Amino acid sequence: MRDSLFHLPEQGPGQEPRQEHGSIQTRIRGMLISAILDARIPTGTPLPSCRRMAKTLGVSRNTVVLAYQGLVDDGFLTARERSGFYVNREILEGRARTESKPTDKPAAAAKTGADWARRFILRPGLQINNQKPLDWQSYPYPFIYGQVDPSLFPIAAWRECSRQALGRLAMGEWTCDNLCYDDPMLVEQIRIRLLPRRGILATDEEILITLGAQNGLYLLASLLVGESTRLAMEEPGYTDAYNIFSLRTPHVRPIPVDEEGLPVDRRLDGCDYVFVTPSHHYPTTVTLPLARRRALLEKAEACDFLIIEDDYESETSYVSEPIPALKSLDTAERVIYAGSLSKSMFPGLRMGYLVGPRRLIDEARALRRLMLRHAPSNNQRTTALFLGQGHHDTLVHRLHRVYRERWRRMGEALALYLPDSLQVPSFGGTSYWVRGPQGLDADRLAIEAMGEGVVIEPGGIHFHSPNPP
Amino acid sequence: MRDSLFHLPEQGPGQEPRQEHGSIQTRIRGMLISAILDARIPTGTPLPSCRRMAKTLGVSRNTVVLAYQGLVDDGFLTARERSGFYVNREILEGRARTESKPTDKPAAAAKTGADWARRFILRPGLQINNQKPLDWQSYPYPFIYGQVDPSLFPIAAWRECSRQALGRLAMGEWTCDNLCYDDPMLVEQIRIRLLPRRGILATDEEILITLGAQNGLYLLASLLVGESTRLAMEEPGYTDAYNIFSLRTPHVRPIPVDEEGLPVDRRLDGCDYVFVTPSHHYPTTVTLPLARRRALLEKAEACDFLIIEDDYESETSYVSEPIPALKSLDTAERVIYAGSLSKSMFPGLRMGYLVGPRRLIDEARALRRLMLRHAPSNNQRTTALFLGQGHHDTLVHRLHRVYRERWRRMGEALALYLPDSLQVPSFGGTSYWVRGPQGLDADRLAIEAMGEGVVIEPGGIHFHSPNPP
Repeated sequence: MRDSLFHLPEQGPGQEPRQEHGSIQTRIRGMLISAILDARIPTGTPLPSCRRMAKTLGVSRNTVVLAYQGLVDDGFLTARERSGFYVNREILEGRARTESKPTDKPAAAAKTGADWARRFILRPGLQINNQKPLDWQSYPYPFIYGQVDPSLFPIAAWRECSRQALGRLAMGEWTCDNLCYDDPMLVEQIRIRLLPRRGILATDEEILITLGAQNGLYLLASLLVGESTRLAMEEPGYTDAYNIFSLRTPHVRPIPVDEEGLPVDRRLDGCDYVFVTPSHHYPTTVTLPLARRRALLEKAEACDFLIIEDDYESETSYVSEPIPALKSLDTAERVIYAGSLSKSMFPGLRMGYLVGPRRLIDEARALRRLMLRHAPSNNQRTTALFLGQGHHDTLVHRLHRVYRERWRRMGEALALYLPDSLQVPSFGGTSYWVRGPQGLDADRLAIEAMGEGVVIEPGGIHFHSPNPP
Repeated sequence: MRDSLFHLPEQGPGQEPRQEHGSIQTRIRGMLISAILDARIPTGTPLPSCRRMAKTLGVSRNTVVLAYQGLVDDGFLTARERSGFYVNREILEGRARTESKPTDKPAAAAKTGADWARRFILRPGLQINNQKPLDWQSYPYPFIYGQVDPSLFPIAAWRECSRQALGRLAMGEWTCDNLCYDDPMLVEQIRIRLLPRRGILATDEEILITLGAQNGLYLLASLLVGESTRLAMEEPGYTDAYNIFSLRTPHVRPIPVDEEGLPVDRRLDGCDYVFVTPSHHYPTTVTLPLARRRALLEKAEACDFLIIEDDYESETSYVSEPIPALKSLDTAERVIYAGSLSKSMFPGLRMGYLVGPRRLIDEARALRRLMLRHAPSNNQRTTALFLGQGHHDTLVHRLHRVYRERWRRMGEALALYLPDSLQVPSFGGTSYWVRGPQGLDADRLAIEAMGEGVVIEPGGIHFHSPNPP
């Protein structure tokens, strides 16, 4: 075997450079595993002796001995007395041989292939949706909505909760397929820690864990929205919600918001559902006043519609007492509530929850079982510990302080540099909705600003009526 | 303030008892956070002094000092010079007051409330589905399919990968909302480590990460199956798949399997899709022979149907060389492939993948964006590291050895005690499909066996034709 087969990579795949450089043994292990699994080491020939490998790689003999022995323990190598280390044939078993050659593929596919255009029942790929620059972290001044500032997240606390969740004792619980059930510990924490902050009282059976709030909206749309369903929502409004509902019904009615959010008037007559973001209207951040909330609930009763409340950014109210969730004012089971940990923890976690009447939650649970069973159990348990040990409260408190300061500074800067920006009065949230002068091309502005290292998001994407401003 | 407010719980919520007992400071912290957040400590009165609290709880004064100081750092308490520790009012801000009394609710709901029966478009809750005893771990002889044996899982390796994924450097990547994109590192590992085992070559754009294989099937059904779509599947077969397809079309055609799995004959004529589990037929574990695979692919071309391959338990073939996936034999883009890490890693992780033509994967990605955006980023990264560092190969090797031995013993026991069980020849998998004598009531048998501590699963649930045996 040629020794040139073996050399240490400067950096292993996916490991942090610092750690990687720290452990030569790990790097030797990685190099050998790759060579074994790619069948680059013949199974009938012994590997170079420890002494020789050490010399080839320029490392100590002990390091190689430990790496070889670890691979024997893990089944990659076998040690034969007086002969040396060999690749364990068994580790390469259970692999099928590739039959088709990759070069055959394009020609054959061109020859026949399925008629895809005819087969699609839904075409979500044709919908217009928010495209954010994925490399926003590389710009000096990113004003990107819905992402978190990693420097504010208590990584040590999350790590500790993760470590506890990964304990041998808890393992029997989180490795299981739980079919349609959630981690009772997380449901309890949502019930006793998160919902009371919003004035909501609920039983465990009225709570369902979802993959982010959006997954909750998707479940509701699947259960409740059909071809003839009429649904009203705010204009401008949450584009993903608009797209979810539009996949199922052509009757999505955009209602232009005013300076208090969604107007409650005759335009809601005849609706089956009203989708609303009362805590902070998406995207203008306006908060729906209490009087309007009560009017909306009364109208729901009078016109027999249900309200889907996305309690979006409820944690960030900087100038006034937070108003309780619509759901907390609801005495007639008219409100279905969607909450999320994306804004306070991190959106990559995909953790949200639905709160609604048990009858609805039971059906949503049955549908979620078919769709994805349940949110990953290890994340459910880690999040439950994070909430239970008070880290989430600490974090919300910190975010509140930091975001309030950023929001204040942004307000001052806008007043100074863009006095005509006619900003909508904004009471919180993590974004600023800025109105430009008549005729401004916001898309062009965004492109030019990016050239200066400033990333902003044009608002046009949030309008869904035929002639947006 | 009455000192009786304060006492240490024997065991905190969700923590392992051993660790819990180890850290008195953590328990004091938990007790105080609960008392603060539940507003049981008046904000105007100082907490008991460290000395007094230490005496009340019977712990050392230093322990209390450290616990108090930690709560100051985290914003729960404020320290006032010469006065002591107070609850930080700010941590209780941002909470809405509860307006409705819980006792109002039932009466009001009874008065009006939504007419749910009229509102549901889908009723997944009415479907018959597999109910497993969730407490199976407490029985001495559980024969439950689809769960893992936690003692075989390399918890230390997973913990190490999780620790690496949680590194400060990687954090910017996994906290983000990635909209519709997967972790490129995980996609690469699936492409170079998992798919070649099954003989499949694919590009990154042909791979989509799903929340388990079942989420892949749900996405496909949403995109491709409408009211008039005709779909054939094995009988008995995978009940969740049957339920997913039946939500969308009444034309699901159960085709009885024979001793080689799904028969390829005229009963497939006129179908738009065929759903099949060729590696190990679910639930009988039969493997579809190579000749039949080729026949199925030819028929797909001749009759213009697509094949949805659930490559179920492909890792566990005990008596023969594994047969490559149908997808690997497909030269005309007729096969859509669903894979999973539930069987080799753990089902609670909810990690699977779809492989198909790019055109289809693009639409599935757009739909997944609306449904749930993406699988949780921290799990994607941890899994990528687990695969990349060879732990998955080690694990599959170990499972193969252990399961083969269990499978052999089970076969011997069945031959000895149930010689008439007429078992279908079974070449692997993690389950045994046992045929009982004519007229046996398997449901009753299961109940009686449970009384003896033996948990088995009756097979009736897997039949979907009008008169199951």
